[in-house]
Amino acid sequence: TIVRIDDTKRVAFKTALSLVQIGEFSLAILELSRSNHLIDPIYSQVLIVTIVISMILTPIVLKNLSGLASKLIPEDSLMVCNTLQVDEDTKGHVIVLGYGNLGHEVANELKRDGKEYYIIENNIKYYEEGKKNNEPIVFGNAVHKHILESVKIKRASAIIVAIDNPEKLHLIWEVIDDLTKNIKTIVKVVKCEEKEALDGLHLKHIIVQNSEIAKALVKETYTI
Amino acid sequence: TIVRIDDTKRVAFKTALSLVQIGEFSLAILELSRSNHLIDPIYSQVLIVTIVISMILTPIVLKNLSGLASKLIPEDSLMVCNTLQVDEDTKGHVIVLGYGNLGHEVANELKRDGKEYYIIENNIKYYEEGKKNNEPIVFGNAVHKHILESVKIKRASAIIVAIDNPEKLHLIWEVIDDLTKNIKTIVKVVKCEEKEALDGLHLKHIIVQNSEIAKALVKETYTI
Repeated sequence: TIVRIDDTKRVAFKTALSLVQIGEFSLAILELSRSNHLIDPIYSQVLIVTIVISMILTPIVLKNLSGLASKLIPEDSLMVCNTLQVDEDTKGHVIVLGYGNLGHEVANELKRDGKEYYIIENNIKYYEEGKKNNEPIVFGNAVHKHILESVKIKRASAIIVAIDNPEKLHLIWEVIDDLTKNIKTIVKVVKCEEKEALDGLHLKHIIVQNSEIAKALVKETYTI
Repeated sequence: TIVRIDDTKRVAFKTALSLVQIGEFSLAILELSRSNHLIDPIYSQVLIVTIVISMILTPIVLKNLSGLASKLIPEDSLMVCNTLQVDEDTKGHVIVLGYGNLGHEVANELKRDGKEYYIIENNIKYYEEGKKNNEPIVFGNAVHKHILESVKIKRASAIIVAIDNPEKLHLIWEVIDDLTKNIKTIVKVVKCEEKEALDGLHLKHIIVQNSEIAKALVKETYTI
């Protein structure tokens, strides 16, 4: 596995963790060297135990990779100096969480409407793309209250969530729920059934992706 | 791995194929029994070669699982008797390819508009769901011309592609291109950049998912 140089420390750490497995093949090699008396019996016992422990731990490590990485490696935010300062009097603006492809399109749409908006992005690559495009973008994790407060979330008119990572989404919704009771949060779900999972989060503005696309597809039939 | 009983023959075959690997662990066991003279040297040589060949073949087999399965196992279509017959005079109807979640929503939308439509679905589970919902649904693979012709594709007013499998999509577009020059085919792509991959297929009606969702999200800000 090759880690590209421009990836963050956390990605590198995840890759390293996923390589901890010694693997079953080493058992075969160990057996061979043992039967040919290349290894002292005392060491070979230690090696067998090590291999077996690593084989037991590997699936657990791989499953909790993201969680482990975020616990052991601190935020990458120190690498970035946020140059954007949101004015204290800012009011009625829109906050966009995420500058992936969807966040990109949302920003373009808001620009077209002449709205004031601020973007929060946690991925350094997308953040730098935003800087390059002269977007009003803040680097940080929307899970942290101080990041949300730095874009004056309480005075915003709407918060558009354009993040796809489901683990992170729930955390973010809970944090925003704490801050604003989610009354002005707009979220996207893929299927109608996913709406149910959002019960209890006070989310009222939910866009159902497949139903919107179905409408667009059927509308397109009238243009033929 | 447990294969559920209601899955099709092809899924069962894929599962079986993905289990062909003998694995590195067997090498360790073989080495042990060899060094303890439990296995005749002649047999153990054969076993080693078998294990090594299976280890070499496994990644190739896993990568081409779908392709292999569709070549070796014939269509499941014989299991299903299509009861729906589309009238010879049918004209101006809409054809929906796929009855997954998106196809479902498209069908509901068309029903609401009072349009005549026919659905083609290749997955037996979705097909039976459609039957249960009293949809005009045909079982079959849209890659085959005779299936498309059975719903009178040449006289249809529009064809909505609601399939997500990218491998299949290209095949289907090519077949429809052959039949109707794609002038009335409506497709969905996720990102704007994916439009470029469709060059040369005469597709003119392309819905960009993220841009539609962005519009819907921004529109929702006006309702707050």
